[in-house]
Amino acid sequence: MTQQRITITDSTLRDGMHTVSHQFTPNDMAEIASALDQAGVDIIEIGHGDGLAGASYQYGFSQAADEDYVRAVCNVVKQAKVAVLLLPGIGTKRDLQIAADLGARAARIATHVTEADISEQHIKVSKDLGLFTVGFLMMAHMEEPNKLVEQAKKMESYGADVVYVTDSAGALLPDGVRARVSALREAVSIPVGFHAHNNLGVAVGNTLAALSEGAGYVDGSLRGMGAGAGNAQTEVMVAALHKAGFQTGTDLAKLIHAAEDVVAPKMTRPQIIDSVALILGYAGVYSSFFLHAKRAAERFGVDPLAILVELGKQRIVGGQEDQIIDVAYELSKKERVGALL
Amino acid sequence: MTQQRITITDSTLRDGMHTVSHQFTPNDMAEIASALDQAGVDIIEIGHGDGLAGASYQYGFSQAADEDYVRAVCNVVKQAKVAVLLLPGIGTKRDLQIAADLGARAARIATHVTEADISEQHIKVSKDLGLFTVGFLMMAHMEEPNKLVEQAKKMESYGADVVYVTDSAGALLPDGVRARVSALREAVSIPVGFHAHNNLGVAVGNTLAALSEGAGYVDGSLRGMGAGAGNAQTEVMVAALHKAGFQTGTDLAKLIHAAEDVVAPKMTRPQIIDSVALILGYAGVYSSFFLHAKRAAERFGVDPLAILVELGKQRIVGGQEDQIIDVAYELSKKERVGALL
Repeated sequence: MTQQRITITDSTLRDGMHTVSHQFTPNDMAEIASALDQAGVDIIEIGHGDGLAGASYQYGFSQAADEDYVRAVCNVVKQAKVAVLLLPGIGTKRDLQIAADLGARAARIATHVTEADISEQHIKVSKDLGLFTVGFLMMAHMEEPNKLVEQAKKMESYGADVVYVTDSAGALLPDGVRARVSALREAVSIPVGFHAHNNLGVAVGNTLAALSEGAGYVDGSLRGMGAGAGNAQTEVMVAALHKAGFQTGTDLAKLIHAAEDVVAPKMTRPQIIDSVALILGYAGVYSSFFLHAKRAAERFGVDPLAILVELGKQRIVGGQEDQIIDVAYELSKKERVGALL
Repeated sequence: MTQQRITITDSTLRDGMHTVSHQFTPNDMAEIASALDQAGVDIIEIGHGDGLAGASYQYGFSQAADEDYVRAVCNVVKQAKVAVLLLPGIGTKRDLQIAADLGARAARIATHVTEADISEQHIKVSKDLGLFTVGFLMMAHMEEPNKLVEQAKKMESYGADVVYVTDSAGALLPDGVRARVSALREAVSIPVGFHAHNNLGVAVGNTLAALSEGAGYVDGSLRGMGAGAGNAQTEVMVAALHKAGFQTGTDLAKLIHAAEDVVAPKMTRPQIIDSVALILGYAGVYSSFFLHAKRAAERFGVDPLAILVELGKQRIVGGQEDQIIDVAYELSKKERVGALL
């Protein structure tokens, strides 16, 4: 049996914010963070679902400002590192500085899987601020392992402490996870992490696959809260990890308490795999495309799921939202969803 | 890429009955079965959650009688085999005869993993009735692969057409599934099936693991409906299978429609992994023990989760419900759940 000590990051208070339309209050966050801290979670990621400065018309407004969340959580957390997420282009160096001043001790710098280049400045600033710094390669299903290796090496060269295979769309299956994690493990000398989404029902299965290839960092969220179909469910993932012989610093009974008694009463909807979440994973497209697809679908009288499938085929990525209209228009002239699946 | 044709059994209308306290009406069943049939599912299992004659004070009463369900479903299903479940000791040969007369074309004969002996009579009757007959070895996590092999061979010798590794408690992880399925594949000449529960979040992951070892039959239920944390979610499982290169006879778009538009509106609660479901899987105990544990917990002022963990350690199985009181009493003198996890 493996007895490796795995580092757990919980993202209930960041990725999970998507599930509540970013409406947790600073008090909610403090309460949940405190429960996570007492349960022994290593890193607690907080803030708007799209990271620092994510609150906007495009991504939706959070209930409070970044500073209010960081302050509230850092006031109560005693052991864990409080982390913020930064997507270069959305958040800025100044946002990172403010978070660090208020007590954040870790930052995850996230880019599209092919764009590690744009993380250089922020990874370096994060390190200069003394933060534990994670390079987060999103939409990792879109590129083969050798491309991921090239990008991970860049993040390592900028000073990242860990590099993550981030399955943003929940589009990977265990074999794909194993291939990517093992390639990174061979190529970089920093630890490798894995962040799952559950769109194909394999968030925990993929996490176990990542660990079998030597990943040292894995993510979850209580009750599985997160974008799309949500993340690996922290308390379930930890139970599976312990059963598989991995060590974590967490107390399973306290995690279960945090999920059931602290988080569940604050949820406004259960985290399930509905048709939209499933198709996002199956097609491998960004969660945030769904609203665009829905609007375009209504305008052209086509199935929004068919639009998502086609966006996946055309490998449309964030920033190319304008092409969704074109796809809807083309589809209105031909296919229904059945033919596309 | 594998191109094996996998046989899909959907158990929304049998295992999923647990999620609605066995209250689907014959009309509900007909409507859902028709959607499953149109989506190309091979086998549609129906009836009380605990199989033929399961309706009782002990297991809960279903909304209608076995005959009403079988009749209603067989009236609308055109392609799929309609299946019933029989647990020797609960259902009888006569129940099987009636189901066959009304149009059922398959039967799953289920025993505890060590008790294949008691399936002989019913497997033979089922075969004599011309039914496609599945041997269903429940609680498969409790025994090592060599013990499973011994039991599976018995079912094969009685005439079973398929033998299943049934993870009733959702207690297996992918490695455990692979070990059991591969052992059976080597030892028997009939196809091997796998039935997952999602208590540790790995129902789909375990199903993929079973397929990687050559399982030819797998089960799911729409929206994951089923005892405990539910089953592999059929529409999600099929999406994952297709993505992994396996062929099924199903139309994914139609399965998604059946889940979202036909089943979801009839559900009275979402199928999630709550603390009880998680602990049932972690401890590896029967779902039906929870109510007993809850009553005993109240009586002795201990945490019901702690009772479940202890029942798992003591390997208490169905029929030994009286020992739950003893466990609760012993626990009241010492431990809290945290210490047990």
